[in-house]
Order: sequence, then structure tokens, then C-alpha cells
Amino acid sequence: MRIALDAMGGDNAPAEIVAGAIEALDFLAADDKIILVGPQAVVEQNIPSSARSNPKLQIVDAPEVIAMDEPPIESLRQKIKSSINVIAKLAKRGEADAVISAGNTGACVAAFQMRMRNIEGVNRPGIAVVFPTFGGAVTVCDVGANIACKPINLYQYAVMAQLYSANVLGVAKPRVGLLSIGAEDAKGNEVVKKARDMIKADPSINLVGNVEGRDIFKGVCDVVVCDGFVGNVVLKLAEGLVDGLFKAIKTELMAEKITLALKFKPVMMRIYQKYDYHEYGGAPLLGVNGTAIICHGSSKARTIKNAINASKKFYSAKINDKIAEYLSKSSIGISNDQEQGS
Amino acid sequence: MRIALDAMGGDNAPAEIVAGAIEALDFLAADDKIILVGPQAVVEQNIPSSARSNPKLQIVDAPEVIAMDEPPIESLRQKIKSSINVIAKLAKRGEADAVISAGNTGACVAAFQMRMRNIEGVNRPGIAVVFPTFGGAVTVCDVGANIACKPINLYQYAVMAQLYSANVLGVAKPRVGLLSIGAEDAKGNEVVKKARDMIKADPSINLVGNVEGRDIFKGVCDVVVCDGFVGNVVLKLAEGLVDGLFKAIKTELMAEKITLALKFKPVMMRIYQKYDYHEYGGAPLLGVNGTAIICHGSSKARTIKNAINASKKFYSAKINDKIAEYLSKSSIGISNDQEQGS
Repeated sequence: MRIALDAMGGDNAPAEIVAGAIEALDFLAADDKIILVGPQAVVEQNIPSSARSNPKLQIVDAPEVIAMDEPPIESLRQKIKSSINVIAKLAKRGEADAVISAGNTGACVAAFQMRMRNIEGVNRPGIAVVFPTFGGAVTVCDVGANIACKPINLYQYAVMAQLYSANVLGVAKPRVGLLSIGAEDAKGNEVVKKARDMIKADPSINLVGNVEGRDIFKGVCDVVVCDGFVGNVVLKLAEGLVDGLFKAIKTELMAEKITLALKFKPVMMRIYQKYDYHEYGGAPLLGVNGTAIICHGSSKARTIKNAINASKKFYSAKINDKIAEYLSKSSIGISNDQEQGS
Repeated sequence: MRIALDAMGGDNAPAEIVAGAIEALDFLAADDKIILVGPQAVVEQNIPSSARSNPKLQIVDAPEVIAMDEPPIESLRQKIKSSINVIAKLAKRGEADAVISAGNTGACVAAFQMRMRNIEGVNRPGIAVVFPTFGGAVTVCDVGANIACKPINLYQYAVMAQLYSANVLGVAKPRVGLLSIGAEDAKGNEVVKKARDMIKADPSINLVGNVEGRDIFKGVCDVVVCDGFVGNVVLKLAEGLVDGLFKAIKTELMAEKITLALKFKPVMMRIYQKYDYHEYGGAPLLGVNGTAIICHGSSKARTIKNAINASKKFYSAKINDKIAEYLSKSSIGISNDQEQGS
């Protein structure tokens, strides 16, 4: 398997990204390859001498870099030779089986969708993030690829995320929840209500109904489906809140007694590890015709190593074939394409 | 001041609601009155004998009750004599200066808006919740009154919430953030982008720009403006996450050492108190022509007591006059009413 890795993506690029690739060399199969994509000299500099001649590492030059805060579409157009554009092209030409980037999320989504195209039957791809919650691993889709969802998009997110949960995370018959503002069927905006009707009409989806913000961390479902705007707010809110709460606890403990703070530290570390998103490595962009993993902007070497592992799992589970097969048999949304299609 | 209190609203009604009213008697002024609204006999039963003849307590009979999960509009129509309908009518007829309910939020919003009407110039009211964050008190509007916001609604939420933050919470020149999915101006859906242009065009609003989910708890702004669907998800997510995290910490500490768990308990209690939404008592429905406070469904006596206090503050601060005056001078959204008005 050939994995194209954007060496310039994220706040800690290129050092941590390249370091993650080096760490991953340990578990790669004999015929696996990591293609590091970025400005040749910069990438080379970051590879330790002991790994420079490793046959599993390859460099493809991409002299341009798209910054984290650049407007996605314009920067993709202007920077043809940017690392994000180049990894997407490698996938398009069949020269890479997977792409991974911790760079500008909007640019990644646009580049992967444009070059790799969607899986037959998929209207819009969605980013699926796995939340390590107190009630188990919960897959939330979409968290930012599509901020103007139509009902058919939400239906397809349910389909794709449940297949991901079942085949990659090993969840048997994943319970699907639709994020809304109340448990009752009548609750939600028009898009959510129409999406619920579509999901309900598909007997292969194990829909538990609407779920609320508070349910995400309670283990009431394995998959949460939502619009990318809402999902993105949820993702960042959860990060910020957990971070802030730990800081508040630390401050209080320090004020109480420094020895108590020290005793609490290992407990805090254990919780951090248990619920750490770095463990999952990255989020697949479900619906594109290939294996595309988008990582957190703050990714460290460990995150990238785990993302490489995640891309191998995703690829070997043949999720995309399963999505295509599922949607080819589903009649949901077909009759009403004019209104509901994207 | 006459405060009409829905004695039947919320999961702990009527006992905790009436108990909250009794607790509030201590700080009421000589000419203040609490009008307890609910089935006469039920309400009477819940008043302790020592308070039965208190001239500051009055009962108005409302034999019907709207349950927490009933569809709002239908139940309001069918249950004319429900406590929510009756408190709204008391306000409409000028027989109450404030209404408070911990009942069905949708029914409260609909009843208050229908009977009390909007402040001149306001298109849609919004619920403003105060989050006690690590960076200070943050007012988030809307958290569920309006789940299909137009740009003009978001602009008006910015106007109303900043006036609330300044005049009730005492924040000098509140910093306003617009909830979106990235800090850059280009980020956000169409409604958010148009709303940002409108808010930017008003030099009296201290706009800090877009804020992300993670910023809500970081103290980057005093007011967060968002659509009611997103705001409701945020509100419930924060509750569920904090709850879950404390449980996870407790479990880890118990597994480590029970004495450590016991030592941690007072710290946990202190944090709970500091960031406890019960302290704020309830959320004002900004934009209706009167003082309307909506409380959490899980309200306890303390929450209700604090909500009664909050209604007094809101009323005496004359926020509604300030909102009407502000909007009468603002030209934002006027030229384009056809498209942007509600």
C-alpha cells in the first residue's frame, strides 16, 4: 500500500509529520510505502540520517504550501504545486492508495473531492470523527466538510458512518442517532426532520431517533449524524471544554494543596489518554473514491503514526466498496432527486 | 413588582418550584408579589402552613398542565387553561410584570411571543443563556427559540445580548463573537456570513469576529451569537460533557484510592458551584415585550429563587426600553427587509 503524506500540513509541520512517518515504519508491511510530499529539501532535512535510505520512504517534491488560514478554493487554484494538491493528484493518478494531511481542512476536502471524485451514489463527502466518549467510541459525521447539508446528505452520512463504525471500529449493528434539539420526532429544523424520514425509511439503519448534545457522551448511540457546521462546533467545543475543565481543576487543586495536585496528576493523565483523540490519528473523509484521512491541525508525531495505521485499516476494510454497494441498492432519495439531491 | 410563576413547569414541579418561591420571599420588596399559577388545590398543598397567609403570595388557578414533551403549538391551543398559557395571559393583561417557567421550552417561547408580542423592531425573540465559563460569564443567544435564523435575527441577538450583558451582568462594552467554524471572515455558512456583514456595519457593536466552539470557554468574548439549533446543541453538549467528565474522574479516583477520591470531593464541589448554571436561575427570552425567564427543566428550589431574583434585575434594568431605543436608531436590515426580515 502506498500512502501519500502531506509533510507540510498542520501547526507542527514538517518536523512532527515526518517524525510520525518515521515512527510508522515499524509497523508497515514489506510492500508498504510512505510518500512524503513537500518541498524536497525541507522534507529531506527532517528525515534522520538513519532512515534516509529506507526503501519504504519516498519523497515527492511539492514546492508550495497552503497555510492553515488561507481560503481553500482560491489557494488550491493558485498553488497548483502545493502539497495538498500533489497528494490528491497522486491518488487520482493511481500512484497512491491513501492520502493523509493535517493541513487546511477546507483545502483538503476540496482537493480530495475534486481530484479523487465521489464514490458512485454519494452526493457529498463528510468527515467522520471518532469521539472517545465515556460510553465508548462514537463516530460523528459530518464535522465540517459540508456546512449546508440537505436531507439526502445526512441520510448518506448515516449510511457511511454506520459502515465505518461496523467495519473499522468493529461495532456490531451500530446505533445511529440524528443530532437535534429534543428527543421527540417533532423536534428539529426542516432539514433534520426530512433526513429523519429518509433514515427511518431504510430498515437497514439501526436508528435510535433524535439525540441531543448531552447524549453524545452518554453512550446512547454509536454514530451521530449532523450538519458539518453543527458538527464542527461540537468537535471544537468538546476540545475546548475538556481543556478548560482540566485547567480549572488544576488551578483549584494547586490552591488547595500542591501535594494533592501532584497526586491527581496520574489520574488526569490516565483520563487524557483514555479520551485522547490523538489515539484515533485522524478522521476519514467518507464518500470520496479512495482513502483520505484528515488530521487535526495540532497533530503530533504520534497522531500521524496513528493516522497512517488508520489509513491502512480503512483501506483494507474496503469500506468504499461497501458504501457503493449499499447505495446502489438503496432507493432512498432517488424519487425526489430534484429537490433533495446535491 | 408582580411575578407570575408557573408552578407546574419542569421535572421537579410543583414541589421545588413552590419551594423556590417561598425561599424568594426573604428578598422580595414590600410591594413585590409572586403569583403562583397552577391547579389551585395542588399549589395550595405545596405551600407550607407558615407561608399560607403571606400577602406576597397569591395563587391563580390554572387547571391544565402542558407536559415537557408535548408538541408546543398544539398543546397551547388545546390547553387554554394551562399554567403556561395563564402566566402569558397575566402578562398580556398587565396583571404581571414578569413570567417565569421551567416548563416546556417550546410552549413557553410560543406562548410568551404570541401573548406578550415582540418589542417594537424585534423580528424574533431569542433565549439568552449565561454560561459560567473559566473566562467569566458568557451570554449565548439563541439557545433554542429560533432554529431557522435569518441574518437579521442574528444581528438582533447581538444587539439584545450585548445590552443584556452590559446592563444586567455589568460587563463594560461586551465583546461580541459570532459562532462559526473558523476565525477567518470567509468561514461560515451563508446566514452567518450575511449576519457578520450586518453586525460589522453597526459601529456600536464591539464585534471580535467569528468565534469557534473551543473559544466559548476561553474568555475571548462576553457574548456569543448563534442560531437556536446550534445554541441548543452547544448548551446540552456542555452540560453532558461536564457531567460525564466528572463521573470519569470520580471512577478513576475510586479505582486509584478511595481516600484520594474523598480528598478530591471538596475541589469538585467548588468547581461545580463556580460553574453552576443554577446560580443564574434562568434564561431571559430577549425580544418579547415584557420580562420572561425560562428555566432549565431540572430546576430546583434554588434555581427558581435565583430566577425570581433575575427577573427583578431584568425588569429594573429596563433592558426592553434600551432594546427598543437601540433598534429605532439602527438602520441595519431596514433597506433589505424583503429578503432579510422574518
